[in-house]
Amino acid sequence: MTPPPPPIGVFDSGVGGLTVAAAIRRILPGEDIFYVGDTARVPYGGKSRPTVERYSLEIARWLLEEKAKTIVVACNTASALAVPRLQSECPVPVQGVVAPGAAAAVASTRNGRVGVIGTRATIASGAYERSIRELDGGIRVHSVPCPLLVPLIEEGLFEDKITDMVLHRYLAPLLGSGIDTLVLGCTHYPLLRGAIARQAGPGVRLVDSAENCALAVRDLLQKRQLSAPPERTGTLRVALTDETEGFLRTAAQALALPVGQVSVRPLGAPGPQTQADKTFGL
Amino acid sequence: MTPPPPPIGVFDSGVGGLTVAAAIRRILPGEDIFYVGDTARVPYGGKSRPTVERYSLEIARWLLEEKAKTIVVACNTASALAVPRLQSECPVPVQGVVAPGAAAAVASTRNGRVGVIGTRATIASGAYERSIRELDGGIRVHSVPCPLLVPLIEEGLFEDKITDMVLHRYLAPLLGSGIDTLVLGCTHYPLLRGAIARQAGPGVRLVDSAENCALAVRDLLQKRQLSAPPERTGTLRVALTDETEGFLRTAAQALALPVGQVSVRPLGAPGPQTQADKTFGL
Repeated sequence: MTPPPPPIGVFDSGVGGLTVAAAIRRILPGEDIFYVGDTARVPYGGKSRPTVERYSLEIARWLLEEKAKTIVVACNTASALAVPRLQSECPVPVQGVVAPGAAAAVASTRNGRVGVIGTRATIASGAYERSIRELDGGIRVHSVPCPLLVPLIEEGLFEDKITDMVLHRYLAPLLGSGIDTLVLGCTHYPLLRGAIARQAGPGVRLVDSAENCALAVRDLLQKRQLSAPPERTGTLRVALTDETEGFLRTAAQALALPVGQVSVRPLGAPGPQTQADKTFGL
Repeated sequence: MTPPPPPIGVFDSGVGGLTVAAAIRRILPGEDIFYVGDTARVPYGGKSRPTVERYSLEIARWLLEEKAKTIVVACNTASALAVPRLQSECPVPVQGVVAPGAAAAVASTRNGRVGVIGTRATIASGAYERSIRELDGGIRVHSVPCPLLVPLIEEGLFEDKITDMVLHRYLAPLLGSGIDTLVLGCTHYPLLRGAIARQAGPGVRLVDSAENCALAVRDLLQKRQLSAPPERTGTLRVALTDETEGFLRTAAQALALPVGQVSVRPLGAPGPQTQADKTFGL
């Protein structure tokens, strides 16, 4: 019996990054995925760079213990704040969501006006703006932090008057400045795609960072000859740092992503981190 | 020169517990307060009991290093989930916000119907319901988790159409069941007192857990003869586990609470926790 090929390691502050895991499964069905959601410390969107770097490095260490062949940062905040540090300290390639999203936005815009929505930390970092302008210095980037969207999504209010009202307030200045492309700069946001598209109207293309990140992972694995044999069927394992109810189920249903046993391991706990993992079913 | 008397240690998942610190300062102006906000892991409201217990014990250890003469759990979620564990492991008295709030609700109600609003974890714990029914088994308690209120408050949307709409949805079933008393079972909620009172109407009394907790702390200190000399002027020191922007300023302004230097110390960081604290001004 040949051992299974090493997995792709994917992490997010919580379970929003399952949108990236779902996209990787669609595009690379032969790959095994080991997913870590840092639900004990979620959300990252309002936290500082040193804290987000520290959390990201801790999780990367865990993914490397699981023999991850590449680390996918399926969280825009961690991508915006921690990717350089992860790249310099990890022995495997690290793929964030910001660079692929920025490239897709540059490819999409016709009028050179791009909007970006994300958490407070992502927008404050200026990461999308920098990535987009590195590719095309003539593009004007309009960014708006949308801190209420993650809580609304975690409550499952995908189609709701309250969500529409919040979206209207966040998107009005972007739409007023004539953007033709809008980057969904948070891995939770694809779950609001319908509501965002309705408000943005047919003249605005939505760039989904999850989808573009999965395509970048495919290219990276091919280039480095790390792809799993195409004939096999990959697995998805999910581990969390705290038991969470509700949203994991919501996300798995909304994404039609079958998640079986979920293991829980506290990170940053006092004492050795080899304590027995706990598992719970979904 | 006599050394200063030991401080009251106060903690919360974030800066919401400053409502309790403000109430303690009003009621006990001679006491020093050392306040810890666990902003690196905020919020607690959706996390599990083992995780909230672990975080609370870590912070209690820090407060004891600061010679706290009593520990005030200025967070309803931590009060609901971690107070028994803290009481059994700490050598000083531990005061939560649930018991005083429950007692105030029992004293307030005339028709025996009490509403409680709080985070998901607080409501799921049933802590208020148990405390109220221990005091008066005839009281009917109606509880509603309100997970969107903390994010709205942290955005400073105290007077806003969106907040009113969210409150209307949460409060409608409580008001429909004829409550005459509503417990604000989260230390953030006093900042929404105006908006909540408008929706609840004049027939419903609001019970503020911050105010009642401060009164319980006064009684506890008197009973144990731990009060500071009445003629002195107390100080407030604030420490956070991550630098936060925005809400600390919002809360300090809304509460008219002067907060000077704020120190930052990461908790649960790898390595010894004696690393130099960092400070930043407000």
